[in-house]
Amino acid sequence: MLKDLILRNRSIRRYHQDEAINLETLKELVDLGRCSASGSNKQTLKYILSCTPEKNALIFSTLSWAGSLPDWPGPSEGERPSAYICILGDTEISKGFGTDHGIAAQSMLLGAVERDLGGCMLASVKRDDLARLLEIPERYQILLIVALGKPKEKVVIEVLEKDGDQRYWRDDDQTHHVPKRRLEDITIG
Amino acid sequence: MLKDLILRNRSIRRYHQDEAINLETLKELVDLGRCSASGSNKQTLKYILSCTPEKNALIFSTLSWAGSLPDWPGPSEGERPSAYICILGDTEISKGFGTDHGIAAQSMLLGAVERDLGGCMLASVKRDDLARLLEIPERYQILLIVALGKPKEKVVIEVLEKDGDQRYWRDDDQTHHVPKRRLEDITIG
Repeated sequence: MLKDLILRNRSIRRYHQDEAINLETLKELVDLGRCSASGSNKQTLKYILSCTPEKNALIFSTLSWAGSLPDWPGPSEGERPSAYICILGDTEISKGFGTDHGIAAQSMLLGAVERDLGGCMLASVKRDDLARLLEIPERYQILLIVALGKPKEKVVIEVLEKDGDQRYWRDDDQTHHVPKRRLEDITIG
Repeated sequence: MLKDLILRNRSIRRYHQDEAINLETLKELVDLGRCSASGSNKQTLKYILSCTPEKNALIFSTLSWAGSLPDWPGPSEGERPSAYICILGDTEISKGFGTDHGIAAQSMLLGAVERDLGGCMLASVKRDDLARLLEIPERYQILLIVALGKPKEKVVIEVLEKDGDQRYWRDDDQTHHVPKRRLEDITIG
């Protein structure tokens, strides 16, 4: 059931880096994004795929991880993503991208979970650095990076009380806790 | 498989309006959005649900349908959505909503397809009118409307040749055709 997939699809930030993901798998995931809805069917999104240690390292160097864990600089060597899908907006097709990248990223991550992988959407990216390192032509706007790998952390959802603190946190066992608002608190009419 | 669900999840604009959708189903769909990723886990999204003819009519009056079919004013009475989920951004939580509404909408629509329903994301909304008609407090920004119902049209994907026309179109049998770029045309690295 879709609900199971959605519940399993937690944002993962530590991975078994030695478990490679091949290019074919990345293409299958992009295909899920490709077949998803696109504003006015303009299909403004373009993709850069990465699953080699060298390219992965370049991308990793431009990412910021887990804003709510300021003492944690991000996954250490050995626990980093095995692959990335960079989602770009093609400004020669449109200047605005609406929410197409969110739609596509969600399709791709659900597909990753179905393959016993996990991932995380990252919007905090040093865009100029990434554009330079990957030699991304100026016409493309970097929208979102999807990190992928074999999960090496446990993530649990818990109830966020009304007006409680929504920040995720880690316990002593390194389990990652994600407080989520209740259904009755987000439905306003 | 997820791919089947994604392929079945076409944007639907004509429905069996007499096939009602109950509030419980809408809540289940919102719950799929609730359990999906949210930028910095801020969970800025709030939802207004509609499945009564009166409320549906108010929402319908503020929507624009199918920009690529200028001669079609939208679904006629009898073919309109049976329900809506209005996705709002709560500006008291954040002033920006990233792409959270796309992520949530995709989860909800995949959930709708799993229930043999269909839907369409609509961003072309007379926002001031909708806010007035539904008495939406000023703190909420209208982000996206998800229309839902039992599909009453056939939608097919076809190959979009490079530099071809991406606009969807209808044939004489009223089948809706959606040209999609090829995987090799959207993967640039």
